[in-house]
Amino acid sequence: MNVTVRGRSIPFRTVTFDPRRNAVRLIDQRLLPHAFRVVSLDDFAQTARAIRDMVVRGAGAIGATAAYGLAQGARAFRGRGLDEFSRHLRTAYQTLSAARPTAVDPITAMDQVRAAVQAGKTVEERQTLALAAAEEFANQDVRHCRELGRHGARLIRQGMNVLTHCNAGWLAFVDVGSATAPLYAAQAQGRTFHVYCDETRPRSQGSTLTAWELAQQHIPHHIIADNAAGHLMQRGQIDLVIVGSDRTLGRTGEVANKIGTYTKAVLARRHRIPFYVAIPLSTIDWDLRRGFDIPIEQRHESEVLGAWGVVENARPGAGGRTPATQSARRSPRRVYVRVANPGSGALNPGFDVTPPELITGIITPLGIFKPGELWPNRRRLGSPA
Amino acid sequence: MNVTVRGRSIPFRTVTFDPRRNAVRLIDQRLLPHAFRVVSLDDFAQTARAIRDMVVRGAGAIGATAAYGLAQGARAFRGRGLDEFSRHLRTAYQTLSAARPTAVDPITAMDQVRAAVQAGKTVEERQTLALAAAEEFANQDVRHCRELGRHGARLIRQGMNVLTHCNAGWLAFVDVGSATAPLYAAQAQGRTFHVYCDETRPRSQGSTLTAWELAQQHIPHHIIADNAAGHLMQRGQIDLVIVGSDRTLGRTGEVANKIGTYTKAVLARRHRIPFYVAIPLSTIDWDLRRGFDIPIEQRHESEVLGAWGVVENARPGAGGRTPATQSARRSPRRVYVRVANPGSGALNPGFDVTPPELITGIITPLGIFKPGELWPNRRRLGSPA
Repeated sequence: MNVTVRGRSIPFRTVTFDPRRNAVRLIDQRLLPHAFRVVSLDDFAQTARAIRDMVVRGAGAIGATAAYGLAQGARAFRGRGLDEFSRHLRTAYQTLSAARPTAVDPITAMDQVRAAVQAGKTVEERQTLALAAAEEFANQDVRHCRELGRHGARLIRQGMNVLTHCNAGWLAFVDVGSATAPLYAAQAQGRTFHVYCDETRPRSQGSTLTAWELAQQHIPHHIIADNAAGHLMQRGQIDLVIVGSDRTLGRTGEVANKIGTYTKAVLARRHRIPFYVAIPLSTIDWDLRRGFDIPIEQRHESEVLGAWGVVENARPGAGGRTPATQSARRSPRRVYVRVANPGSGALNPGFDVTPPELITGIITPLGIFKPGELWPNRRRLGSPA
Repeated sequence: MNVTVRGRSIPFRTVTFDPRRNAVRLIDQRLLPHAFRVVSLDDFAQTARAIRDMVVRGAGAIGATAAYGLAQGARAFRGRGLDEFSRHLRTAYQTLSAARPTAVDPITAMDQVRAAVQAGKTVEERQTLALAAAEEFANQDVRHCRELGRHGARLIRQGMNVLTHCNAGWLAFVDVGSATAPLYAAQAQGRTFHVYCDETRPRSQGSTLTAWELAQQHIPHHIIADNAAGHLMQRGQIDLVIVGSDRTLGRTGEVANKIGTYTKAVLARRHRIPFYVAIPLSTIDWDLRRGFDIPIEQRHESEVLGAWGVVENARPGAGGRTPATQSARRSPRRVYVRVANPGSGALNPGFDVTPPELITGIITPLGIFKPGELWPNRRRLGSPA
């Protein structure tokens, strides 16, 4: 999608590869939305560190980064013979997969690269094939998101108000995103509409990442507190809800996604507002039989007890005083502020599970399915079983 | 209720009067929860400024402050004769009522003081009556909250998990509070239970004020993100919801309260969890015929786009770095941090309206009523009509 750099709107991917310098290039997502910076990683160890340090996050994005990192490792090989090359590749694979040990996408992506390499008869051939396979993984991620967007775009009519939760945007993928893909496709088709971004406490991915994306793409939007969606629905100000998914149960149609998703689904049902979930096929879990069994990550309480932001001058109406530090204005350094009572603790479940009866449809690269239609269509949707 | 000062738990009211020094004493609520400080106001102009600057907030609390402020003004009179005294009192009344021009409680409270004064035949008698009437207003506020608590306490059973939203606690009144009154009463009756405090974005009154109150009172509690209540209800971890009300329609039983209240009511209904609203009688509006006509204050977007807190060392798991400034450790000065994308705006409705069909009961000083029972009982509940 587009990024405005020094006043010019430039097409950009979250992850790219520079073959001349053998470098992986990433948007540093830790600095967003306060600064836009691209980092260039010169060897696979640096790339692995960037994955570990959350310079890049999101299933598709870390998958592509790992694939490029493995190709980068392969292309840096200066030794002799296929055996030594294989050992070198194994080291790179292990280093990159250890960066986010519980993530599935880096493994999937690197396995594709490793399989493609086998067809090469020389080290040089294998180096070429490694990069081609990494590029193919990234391009396929983009293609799937675009197809998902094409199917979802028909839900978005002229003048609509669309609510989204958290960030299932292009920053989480190589480009386009999942929940945002229908928005970008509808915009490309010439329709205008307005988006409400749930702030998405405690980590505020809605007010930071999703709002940043929409602003870059010139899509009209407003951030709202997570508390406000119910009121807006009650007053007829929301026409459609689209969210992403971290895990979708193929057998039941249940959707695990960022905490608060379930609440929006309950509200949407009460107000008869269509509630859609947009997913790449890789998030479908074909094994698990009950949403209740999805492990819910309990995250650190500090996320709920405070907030990360950039110190700013007080705005009118905000109350209280702020020291306008010169340094804060020169470089936007984020600080953690404790908001809550210092004597109190917090509970911080990271995800919740939305049952299929609250989901109008699941938007996939292959079309829109009712939650109950996933299992009957499991062959088409790529179930290994 | 109790406040822990230098390790000792001391009973405290939000607002008190020191007759020897003719001073109004307030807990400075702008510093909570990061510091506990009591300010002493030496004349009615200072008291008015404290109301205006939000040193004190909450219906009952600003009512009592205004009543004490008027008595303070009366007692400071050093002139001669009843006519000059009346003029002096009128000045104090006008100064105090202008401090929060849209608030109803300061007017109600000061009218009571002004009416009581009439019985005095001398300036000295009137000065004595003014203070007695102000004390009576404050004591009545406490009495009503205690009665409300007595009725509500029977809803709270041993071992329960209770959810509350925003701060309808003793800081908003002279003592005890409304939504918190049943909790304190149940605790006094020897029952143990656990409270979930909704953070209550964007102003975070739940994680700051309610959590502070509960901590002072040693009631076990956890703060949660507003997004988390739905998930906890789904997992059977919430047994009861009690909230306050800014305005309750006597004719319909609709309740206007802090944004997000409606969402909790919708969730509670889905999970068959009792949803109660605790109110002092002064918040009942006997005139308005439709909740839709309650004006919803649109507050400044900066509240949603950032947060107020105290700069702290990074906690493990919070991500990123924080400069541990010495000054932040020495005096807890709150700063405003911008969290959201700098190019994005926000929508910030301050309140929402919960329909009567989602409300299990309304807890009042006169007992618990179904929303539809307010109007038939309007005489008892103090309707002027």
